[in-house]
Amino acid sequence: MQHEVTYDRIMQTAMGFWASKTLMSAVELGVFDTLASGPLDATVLRLRVGIHERSARDFFDALVALGLLQRDQAGLYSNSREAARFLDRANPNYIGGIIEMFNARLYGFWGSLTEALRTGEPQNEAKSGGDLFANLYRDPVRLEGFLRGMTGITTPVADALVEVFPWKKVNRVVDIGSAQGCVPVRLALAHPHLTASGFDLPEVGPIFARYVAAHGASERVRFIPGDFFQDSLPKADVLIMGMILHDWDLPTKKMLLGKAHASLPHGGSLIVCEMLIDDAREVHLPGLLMSLNMLIETRGGFDFSGADCISWMREIGFSDARVAPLVGAYSAVIATK
Amino acid sequence: MQHEVTYDRIMQTAMGFWASKTLMSAVELGVFDTLASGPLDATVLRLRVGIHERSARDFFDALVALGLLQRDQAGLYSNSREAARFLDRANPNYIGGIIEMFNARLYGFWGSLTEALRTGEPQNEAKSGGDLFANLYRDPVRLEGFLRGMTGITTPVADALVEVFPWKKVNRVVDIGSAQGCVPVRLALAHPHLTASGFDLPEVGPIFARYVAAHGASERVRFIPGDFFQDSLPKADVLIMGMILHDWDLPTKKMLLGKAHASLPHGGSLIVCEMLIDDAREVHLPGLLMSLNMLIETRGGFDFSGADCISWMREIGFSDARVAPLVGAYSAVIATK
Repeated sequence: MQHEVTYDRIMQTAMGFWASKTLMSAVELGVFDTLASGPLDATVLRLRVGIHERSARDFFDALVALGLLQRDQAGLYSNSREAARFLDRANPNYIGGIIEMFNARLYGFWGSLTEALRTGEPQNEAKSGGDLFANLYRDPVRLEGFLRGMTGITTPVADALVEVFPWKKVNRVVDIGSAQGCVPVRLALAHPHLTASGFDLPEVGPIFARYVAAHGASERVRFIPGDFFQDSLPKADVLIMGMILHDWDLPTKKMLLGKAHASLPHGGSLIVCEMLIDDAREVHLPGLLMSLNMLIETRGGFDFSGADCISWMREIGFSDARVAPLVGAYSAVIATK
Repeated sequence: MQHEVTYDRIMQTAMGFWASKTLMSAVELGVFDTLASGPLDATVLRLRVGIHERSARDFFDALVALGLLQRDQAGLYSNSREAARFLDRANPNYIGGIIEMFNARLYGFWGSLTEALRTGEPQNEAKSGGDLFANLYRDPVRLEGFLRGMTGITTPVADALVEVFPWKKVNRVVDIGSAQGCVPVRLALAHPHLTASGFDLPEVGPIFARYVAAHGASERVRFIPGDFFQDSLPKADVLIMGMILHDWDLPTKKMLLGKAHASLPHGGSLIVCEMLIDDAREVHLPGLLMSLNMLIETRGGFDFSGADCISWMREIGFSDARVAPLVGAYSAVIATK
C-alpha cells in the first residue's frame, strides 16, 4: 500500500546539506581547476587533489550525479559545461569565490540558525566582536577572492540589466557598492555612449582598477571612492544599488533611498537589484532564505518584496516604480524621480 | 544577452544547506508540534516556539515556500499535509527523529567533509575516541528518539516490501537489525499466516516490545536478542537486512551475507534493502551521498549498487539475485539460497 503523501520532499530538503557540502569540498579541493587541463581517471584525479582512496570514487561520482562532472566510457572524469564555465578558477566567469566563502564561513554560522532565530542576533564574526565587512576589507587577497565571486554571480544579472532599461537616453550611470565594477563595465561595453562609474569604499579602488583594465574599459569606467554612510551619493542620471539594501535595517534602507533621490536629477532613475521575495511571501524561496542569511550575517538586514520596495520608494518621493525580472532569482525595482 | 549555460543549478546546490537548516531548526523549535493543535498567526506562533520578532515571519514564510506550512487569507499558519503526517511528534508516522539527529550531529560533522576525504577517517564521535552506536545505545531516551525516526522512515519501505515478495509461501521471517520492529510488524499485520521476528542488540528489546504492543502484534512478533558479530543469525525462511550492510566494510558485508546464507534453508531468501547506487554510478544521487555519509559516520562503510550486491551474493553461494525497486530512493536486492 503506497501512501498518497510521501516524505520524499521532506527528506530531500533535510539531506540538502550533503549535496551543498560535497560541492563546497570539490571547490575547496580544486577538483574543477584540476580537470580544466583535461580529463583524468579516478586515481590520477584523487592524487592530484590530495584525497584518500577510500571515498574518492563516491565523491567524484556524486559530482557526476550533481551534473558537475562527466565520466566517459574509459572512466575519465571531465568538467561539465556548467562546471567548466563557473567553477574553474581560470575562467573569467568563476563563481567559486562565493562557494569558498560559504564553505569557510556560512556553513558553520548557519549551524547556529536556531540561536539566531531565538535571539535575533547575527551568528557570524559579529558574535565574537568582529565585523563581516571590516574583516573582509582588512585582507586584500581574501577581499579580491570574495569580490571575484560576487562578479561571477553578478555578470548574468548585469547582462540582463543591459537589456531591461532604456540606456539610450542615459549619459551617466553610477553603481553604488560596485565591488570590482562588473555592472559599470558590462553597461559601458554594451552602450558605448555611456559614462559608467562604480562607487565603493576606497579599499576597493585598486581591485576595481585591475578589473576594469583587464576588460579594456579604463577610458570610460571610473572609480568614485566613498562611504554611503558618510558621504552623499554621486550625481548621475541613473543610480544602481545591487544587493545593497538587503544588508541593512529599514531606517538605513530608507536613508539610502533618500540619498539616491537627493542625488538624481528630475527624471533620473534608481534601479534596485535584489533576490526579491514574491509579494504574497509564499513562493520565492531564495529571497526568503537570503533574508534568513541576513539574520545570520547582519544586525538588522532583511530581504523584501517588490511591493515593499515600491512603497518605500514612493514614501521617499519616487514615482513610476515597477518590478522587472532579470535572470534566475534576481529582479530589479526601477523608479523615477 | 542571456547565457545558454547558467549557474542556477550550481547556486541552488551551494545554497541547499540554507533550506536543510531551516527545516532542522523548525523541527528543533517544535513549529510543527505547535501547529498540530490548530492554525496560529505569526505572533502567537513565534511566542509559542520562543523565537525573536526579527526574523520570525521570514522563517515561517520560508517554511511555506518549502511546502511545509500553509498560510491562509487571514494570515494563520498551519501544517501542510506532509508536515502534519511526518513532522508532528504525536503522529505515528513522525520522521523528525532523523532530522533532529541530523541537526544535533550530522550537520556539524559534515562540516569536516574535506578532512574526511583527505584522511579516509570518520568525522563523528569516533574522532574524539567515541563510537556512534555505543553512544546511541547508552542513552535510552536518545535511542528511542532515533529508533522512532528510523521507524518513520522505514514504514513506507516496509509497506512496499509487503507487496514486492511472495509472502504466501513463507512461514518464518526475521528482520536483522530490526530496531523498533517496524518491518516485522507491518509484515505480520499484512500477512496473518506469518511469524515475523526482529533480531537486534539486547538493549533494543524493551523498545521493540513497546512498539509491537502498541500495534497489537505482541502475539505474533517476537524479539530475538543477539549480536551479528558474535552470534549466528536466527533460522528463518526469509531474512531481511535493511540499511545494515552499508554500515560496514567489504569483508564485514561478506561475513554478514555468509551468516545469512548459513542460517537459511535451501530455497530460503535473503532480502537486502538499501538506497542503492545505480549500476553506472552516475544518476542516483541519494545512494552516492549516503555513501559519503558512511565515510563521515563509520570506519569502513560504503553504499553500493545492485550489481555490486548481486556479485557478492553470488560469490557467497546465493542464486537468482535480482533488484526490486521499493519506494522513493529505496530498493531491495532479493536472492535465493
